[in-house]
Amino acid sequence: MEIREFQNLIREIYLGRDAKRGADKTFLWLLEEVGELTRAYRRQEHKNVGKEMADVIAWLASMANLLNIDLESELLKKYPKKCPLCSSSPCCCPFT
Amino acid sequence: MEIREFQNLIREIYLGRDAKRGADKTFLWLLEEVGELTRAYRRQEHKNVGKEMADVIAWLASMANLLNIDLESELLKKYPKKCPLCSSSPCCCPFT
Repeated sequence: MEIREFQNLIREIYLGRDAKRGADKTFLWLLEEVGELTRAYRRQEHKNVGKEMADVIAWLASMANLLNIDLESELLKKYPKKCPLCSSSPCCCPFT
Repeated sequence: MEIREFQNLIREIYLGRDAKRGADKTFLWLLEEVGELTRAYRRQEHKNVGKEMADVIAWLASMANLLNIDLESELLKKYPKKCPLCSSSPCCCPFT
């Protein structure tokens, strides 16, 4: 599935609710999901880690819809098949 | 671009570094990017919000690569064109 298609899917299912809730409260939901992902990872609940990653991306898509941000464009702009810092693939930046 | 294609792109650019750094430290990077996204949103820096969303998704992809999680499968499993809770599109769950 294309990234844009997934964002549209989330728009169709949730935009009405997201708009009613507003961006600030939707952002709080996003952060709650990040917390759930962190807990699943800390507990090494492998199955839940995948599910929580999906939730984080879904709430990011909700935020992007509210702010008229196209995630696919942003990803391609920032990561044009190479590292944005050293312009290489694989990345050859100083190790961090 | 497909979600799986993006995850593969991040694998090609960063897997060597991500594996060397390890999953725990890579997760800390992910959380740092969530912090940067939060700051950009709080400051209403619209352009940066899009960029930071891209970074959060890229670090999620790095974590998924390290844990052998396929993000596209997880997204399609969790959001099969309807809300996972009420099974409707648009969602008709009690409002939150």
